Amino acid sequence: MSAEPTAMEAHAKAEEQARSARGAAEALQVGLLGSGTVGKAFAQLLSEREDAIASLTGRRPSVCGTLTRSSGDFKEILASCEVMIELIGGIEPARSYVLEAMRAGKHVVTANKQLLCEHGEELFDAASENGVMLRFEAAVAGVVPVIRVLTESLAGVEVKRIHGIVNGTTNFVLSAMERGADYEHALAEAQANGYAEADPHEDVSGADAAAKMAILARLAFGTPVRLTDVCYEGIEHLISDDLQYARELGLGLKLIGTAERMQGGLSVRVHPAFLYGGHPLASVGGQFNAVTVEADCITEITMSGPGAGGPQTASAVLGDLMSVMSAAEGSSPPPAPPRQPLPLLTDTDSAFYLHMEVADQRGALVAVASVLDRWGASVKSVLQRGLGENARLVMVTHPLSEASLRAAVAEIGELEFVRSPPRAIRVIEEEFA
Amino acid sequence: MSAEPTAMEAHAKAEEQARSARGAAEALQVGLLGSGTVGKAFAQLLSEREDAIASLTGRRPSVCGTLTRSSGDFKEILASCEVMIELIGGIEPARSYVLEAMRAGKHVVTANKQLLCEHGEELFDAASENGVMLRFEAAVAGVVPVIRVLTESLAGVEVKRIHGIVNGTTNFVLSAMERGADYEHALAEAQANGYAEADPHEDVSGADAAAKMAILARLAFGTPVRLTDVCYEGIEHLISDDLQYARELGLGLKLIGTAERMQGGLSVRVHPAFLYGGHPLASVGGQFNAVTVEADCITEITMSGPGAGGPQTASAVLGDLMSVMSAAEGSSPPPAPPRQPLPLLTDTDSAFYLHMEVADQRGALVAVASVLDRWGASVKSVLQRGLGENARLVMVTHPLSEASLRAAVAEIGELEFVRSPPRAIRVIEEEFA
Repeated sequence: MSAEPTAMEAHAKAEEQARSARGAAEALQVGLLGSGTVGKAFAQLLSEREDAIASLTGRRPSVCGTLTRSSGDFKEILASCEVMIELIGGIEPARSYVLEAMRAGKHVVTANKQLLCEHGEELFDAASENGVMLRFEAAVAGVVPVIRVLTESLAGVEVKRIHGIVNGTTNFVLSAMERGADYEHALAEAQANGYAEADPHEDVSGADAAAKMAILARLAFGTPVRLTDVCYEGIEHLISDDLQYARELGLGLKLIGTAERMQGGLSVRVHPAFLYGGHPLASVGGQFNAVTVEADCITEITMSGPGAGGPQTASAVLGDLMSVMSAAEGSSPPPAPPRQPLPLLTDTDSAFYLHMEVADQRGALVAVASVLDRWGASVKSVLQRGLGENARLVMVTHPLSEASLRAAVAEIGELEFVRSPPRAIRVIEEEFA
Repeated sequence: MSAEPTAMEAHAKAEEQARSARGAAEALQVGLLGSGTVGKAFAQLLSEREDAIASLTGRRPSVCGTLTRSSGDFKEILASCEVMIELIGGIEPARSYVLEAMRAGKHVVTANKQLLCEHGEELFDAASENGVMLRFEAAVAGVVPVIRVLTESLAGVEVKRIHGIVNGTTNFVLSAMERGADYEHALAEAQANGYAEADPHEDVSGADAAAKMAILARLAFGTPVRLTDVCYEGIEHLISDDLQYARELGLGLKLIGTAERMQGGLSVRVHPAFLYGGHPLASVGGQFNAVTVEADCITEITMSGPGAGGPQTASAVLGDLMSVMSAAEGSSPPPAPPRQPLPLLTDTDSAFYLHMEVADQRGALVAVASVLDRWGASVKSVLQRGLGENARLVMVTHPLSEASLRAAVAEIGELEFVRSPPRAIRVIEEEFA
């Protein structure tokens, strides 16, 4: 055997080879729709990484044209690109551009969760009919590769349940509230740090998370799910006390999206929920996102990372562009999951945490428990703590329907010795109780 | 617009389409080498999921032959299969079988970390020369999709650092020690639960984790790394006290693998390390594995899940098989990362935690600090606590080389008032101090 080259010689040789590969790399024209935070970050990342991509793939991507509000021409960009990247957001004109690009035989990469959520089937069909690829990793959980893992690594697995923290704004606000801030201050802090919009409604109402869970549910369960199919509840009604009690009990309180095969159907929902301390999502703080996928044969996989941010989202878009580039010329797109729609369930059973203040008098606990019992809610654990003349009563129920729970809560609120109406929050997993 | 079908009608129609797609699905012959825990679990999972896979991909995979110690003929299996799955483990005969399969134009899926670690370049070259795909997700961190995410989602990203808990046996043992068990009992518990081999040496010595980190480093940094290039240290010398102190300080103690671009080179190492409480790997308990990937443009992504187990590992193998199946006919394999080898570093600087018992007398602290200072170790934080006549002295240093640290520790051990030789453990991130 001849002497092996030293690491430095090997390095020099490899650099030389890479240089010549880059020189020979054929150009790949990329059309860019949108020039906001993510659009700008993507253009910059692509120019920083084009040498590395050229040596890895043999093709050198570059932006052949950018459409902004005030400049660029869609038809010209369409004619000159091989891959179209849509970072405009919203339904129109994004939908028309994306459909037109696919009909013209261009692969499409998009970060547009609304478009995927509301027009997913139309887009998947267009991709399939025109033999082009449609990628959208950045539409859910930013740089966290949940779309690829669900549709590729886990394509052969029967997914049982997905839990996700898929909105960074609300997770940031809840983390600040856990440290003692009230909702308004926490939201203002999120806005000051660029983690919340001036109008935060879409995030704090749970609608943004619901759209993302609809996309994940579509992929994991082959069922078309739109925003109107998702039961969602936001964080506006939470108070700092809820998080403090949670902490005392060793629980995290998060805005959790769930997509779950159950009772022969599919439940997709978003709501604040208590998680026991060891839950993989309980330690996800600040603006991070995380998704847990459960199936019998995998137990569970959890993925976490930044859910937003220009460079982070741009990285997910770049991963999709490279995925398109590395697929063989003339190959057909990987099939979308077959549609075997499950019926969508609305009122699913959950365990609930109830918290109320009552006059510290005999019979209070029994009276509350009787109301719950009448509505079919059996009590799993109780904690009563004196507060001078009053007492704080905390209960965790076994699973019951939201309708029954709401009825019981209304009735408890009418009891004469109840000082404040009960606060009810769902509990995910009951291991702590 | 005509009335939309109801969900139940759509479901029935989709089931009908899926049935006919399954009926029409062309067979895909899979050769299976090995029939141990993972081999058996894979054969079972494949037969459970073949209908779903047929309707998703249009092809129905089935095992055309299995090679065990006592039955099956490799040549026959090779002749009849399109994809070869190697679950024998170890270097030979696995290496010869895999190379022969690729030379015969068969795609290969393997879970063999030793083979990838020691013969990675030979295998990548053979795949490339023969135009076949080589997949090995299950070789590192079981069902956690770290290989796919590194080589696909993050292919365009310049990775800065990877931290991983990639050995479930040691993580299980450390979790048990954190709950108070001593090393021997914790190991016995792991063995009783099937999480440790009768001969646990490869796991507890850090060698298994080192082989896996070598594979990840190869993929993330384009640098051939073999087991002998990895500095590794195991968990045999840890005592339960180390974990108790860690807990008191709000730290986790884990066996951490690191692959890191630094000082113009690459450092790959495995050693026990303290992690501050908020580190994404600090909360990974039991037999779970987890990997964190850092790069400027992504901040960090963390993935976790079961690192071993028959069905879990089989799921990762199935994901690879489907990846091979969904790649287009006649497509070329995705290129391996180009080799641009970085020089491998050995002695890298780390912060250290030092723990010793000293006589509770004036000057002890100053004397210890002076020795550290002489070896270039500046002290970042100190905690001294009385224990009757003695005192426990805990220090965290700023980063210094292991060689300097070992020299300083030896000298401190000679000091007259030191009651027990100092225990030194690396610290990852210093945020807690």
